[in-house]
Amino acid sequence: MDHSLFIYNTLSRSKELFRPLNEGHVGMYVCGPTVYGDAHLGHARPAITFDLVFRYLKHLGYKVRYVRNITDVGHLEHDADEGEDKIAKKAKLEQLEPMEVAQHYTNRFHEAMAALGCLPPSIEPHATGHIIEQEALVRQILDAGYAYESNGSVYFDVEKYNKDHKYGILSGRNLEDVINASRQLDGVGEKRNQVDFALWKKAQPEHIMRWPSPWGDGFPGWHCECTAMGRKYLGQQFDIHGGGMDLVFPHHECEIAQAVASQGKPMVKYWMHNNMITINGQKMGKSLGNFITLSQFFTGDHEKLDQAYSPMTIRFFILQAHYRSTVDFSNEALQASQKGLERLMEAFAQIERVEPTEGGALTEAYAEELKQKCYEALDDDFNSPIVISHLFDACRTINQLVDRKQTITPSGLEALRQTLNVFVHDILGLRTEAQGGSQREEAFSAAVDMLLELRAKAKAAKDWATSDAIRDRLAELGFEVKDTKEGATWRLAKN
Amino acid sequence: MDHSLFIYNTLSRSKELFRPLNEGHVGMYVCGPTVYGDAHLGHARPAITFDLVFRYLKHLGYKVRYVRNITDVGHLEHDADEGEDKIAKKAKLEQLEPMEVAQHYTNRFHEAMAALGCLPPSIEPHATGHIIEQEALVRQILDAGYAYESNGSVYFDVEKYNKDHKYGILSGRNLEDVINASRQLDGVGEKRNQVDFALWKKAQPEHIMRWPSPWGDGFPGWHCECTAMGRKYLGQQFDIHGGGMDLVFPHHECEIAQAVASQGKPMVKYWMHNNMITINGQKMGKSLGNFITLSQFFTGDHEKLDQAYSPMTIRFFILQAHYRSTVDFSNEALQASQKGLERLMEAFAQIERVEPTEGGALTEAYAEELKQKCYEALDDDFNSPIVISHLFDACRTINQLVDRKQTITPSGLEALRQTLNVFVHDILGLRTEAQGGSQREEAFSAAVDMLLELRAKAKAAKDWATSDAIRDRLAELGFEVKDTKEGATWRLAKN
Repeated sequence: MDHSLFIYNTLSRSKELFRPLNEGHVGMYVCGPTVYGDAHLGHARPAITFDLVFRYLKHLGYKVRYVRNITDVGHLEHDADEGEDKIAKKAKLEQLEPMEVAQHYTNRFHEAMAALGCLPPSIEPHATGHIIEQEALVRQILDAGYAYESNGSVYFDVEKYNKDHKYGILSGRNLEDVINASRQLDGVGEKRNQVDFALWKKAQPEHIMRWPSPWGDGFPGWHCECTAMGRKYLGQQFDIHGGGMDLVFPHHECEIAQAVASQGKPMVKYWMHNNMITINGQKMGKSLGNFITLSQFFTGDHEKLDQAYSPMTIRFFILQAHYRSTVDFSNEALQASQKGLERLMEAFAQIERVEPTEGGALTEAYAEELKQKCYEALDDDFNSPIVISHLFDACRTINQLVDRKQTITPSGLEALRQTLNVFVHDILGLRTEAQGGSQREEAFSAAVDMLLELRAKAKAAKDWATSDAIRDRLAELGFEVKDTKEGATWRLAKN
Repeated sequence: MDHSLFIYNTLSRSKELFRPLNEGHVGMYVCGPTVYGDAHLGHARPAITFDLVFRYLKHLGYKVRYVRNITDVGHLEHDADEGEDKIAKKAKLEQLEPMEVAQHYTNRFHEAMAALGCLPPSIEPHATGHIIEQEALVRQILDAGYAYESNGSVYFDVEKYNKDHKYGILSGRNLEDVINASRQLDGVGEKRNQVDFALWKKAQPEHIMRWPSPWGDGFPGWHCECTAMGRKYLGQQFDIHGGGMDLVFPHHECEIAQAVASQGKPMVKYWMHNNMITINGQKMGKSLGNFITLSQFFTGDHEKLDQAYSPMTIRFFILQAHYRSTVDFSNEALQASQKGLERLMEAFAQIERVEPTEGGALTEAYAEELKQKCYEALDDDFNSPIVISHLFDACRTINQLVDRKQTITPSGLEALRQTLNVFVHDILGLRTEAQGGSQREEAFSAAVDMLLELRAKAKAAKDWATSDAIRDRLAELGFEVKDTKEGATWRLAKN
């Protein structure tokens, strides 16, 4: 931890030296998915970005508590045609159950995250599991005078808050501008001011998910969960809050207001935001209808995709850009990432074939220099593309070593292997993709069949030396070969 | 669904015809794990038992909502030596966080379940996420007069309940006996009667997990969560409640009392309980110190284990006994299961090699008979061992077909393949285990190396026909072979 890690803080719009609030510990909160639909490429970016942050901070020796929420408060409604009476008569089992929908998409999200090599967060709190904490937050804000009740709902009084504190410090927006922008919208209804946001919403009869509260049956406003759960698990003040740049306003701005209004001081020291992924320059999003789900990428089953892209290709594609740069999706870009990743992983595997030589030209100093360069890049606001370019340089060296155009000492080779392992596996989280898919297995199986044919030919030619050698070697490797009337068959018991 | 499915109901101690409360729908609640430790073999049994029930009911065409809870209310305490003041001064991040422990073991439990081929339940509610619902339950029982508050805790009044309803209907215990058995224990303390159980417990200062309630800060009694969450997601009355036999008393007995006391009628129609797994005749359990965790089984890393046992071996081992029979663990028994599973899956794979013949001796009637026998076994209280014995009979037939000692028509073969697929894969949930582990890959790779050596030998012997054939066939299969000074190298791009 003697690193000078700099993190770009959205709050100050500058890179700041990272100093955790509690020595040796880091508390990090990242906005997670809403689990009423499949995760798309836009979800992969924050997940991979903050996975890199999590991995690097842990590598530096910090004890990191990484909290990422599951937004499972769903706004599903009973079929309006049915009427309340009919719904009440319907058995619970026959009714739509939002938690069943949420569970389905939570499971699928977890599968996608595991495939992308994202480590599970330390805690994954569910919004529906923290209604008590959210109600307590609303109560505090009401007690502090920064909220008001209106027709069974509770709203945050932005104008009042702005008088005492400044609203808009994260997004750099001015309350006047926000008000002017929202004036064009519909009337204020229950709110005193159009810019006020809901802390608690009264549930309409058709609204399925609802909880009792001092203000009547309802559900928490969207911004509450992160403030309430972040505080519960990380404390009143914690180090890092992350999320996509599209959450800066209004979500994170409202979170800051809620924290300051309820506890008198802000909660977060470093605000980190990843940039967006665009398709032909346009933001990818459900509401825009131009999103491609992660499972569509993995299978290639989408009209915009020329082929399937493996989860590691997606991960590498995202890490090849700095997290604050925009990334534009295209098949060409993903294909280039796929090739790049293959090149990197192949060279990394090739290192096992390098024969070191005493007195080789490269020594431990070479690995040390590589390591320092990678650290420098990561310490500069987690600059993964620079790390990758250093790793590509190392690949070229490995290829030279394999071709015997370069030499390395035994300890130099060991240091190089360790350094690559740390950056490729531990920190970037890249791995050789699961082998043994059926295509691979088929190709290997056909190769073994070929060996048995060669053995049969050798036998026919009475070349016993060859036929026995094949049989013995296969047996040694764990292949059980059986000779049948129809020819030899084999099986491999190993997994 | 024209099946006459019989289920053994612990409540009536007899097999009853299964008639769901709502036509076409089944609501099933199963007691899930306490996530403060690794899952052991004892956890695998209910998971696999009710996975079979879930799969079979779905196969029969029911829409099944399967709820399995996560007990994450943890009784972790702050270090008593520290004193309250010191704890209060400690930053949140430096304190033990029970949810971080719970998340860790929840993730490991999910991994083990996936490996065992258990489908995820429809909803996996967390106890900590349903404090409001549990408090509402306690309130109802208090209002009905079957509970009393005492020093910040709330207890269920068993004697009062027993006067109006009968306590002990599930376990067949008599309240007198229960009282006599518990008289030997310590004094009753806050309780009116030793048999009373907690609905809400006051949190001691050192107790970390706590929520506000009308009775003061505390946490729900253990029995509340299943009643509250079962009702929330499945309705006031639902079809099946399952769990291990060790939960009959007191847990499920208390659940019944809570349901009747709060809503005036019982909640569950069919109570199902799997029997225990023993080690040398003794129950396996954390408190007994003789348990082997699932990951220890998967790796073989335990002094009682002669080898590693794959997840599918464990699954098959458990399915080879009827769920209401005891199962005694031994290496011999598991090794026998491993061999049996291999035999089954190999025969199942061999079916692809069978050549059907028009006018074959076996027809679709053979597959139909097999199917009916398997259905009969499952309809008789999910008798999986009988299903497996029928499948082994089919294996023998397949081997005869492979050896051409038996014949089958094309449509008969297709029907047989489909029938096996339904029972082996869909209902028993068995699958060929993930291939491509490193050992397998190594063996295959060595086989390809051998092919390249044979090619080099052929070249040296100027046997161009052979050397070219090997090269061309490998290229066809997707192997890229490169000739280098040091010999040929290859890579396989496929996944």
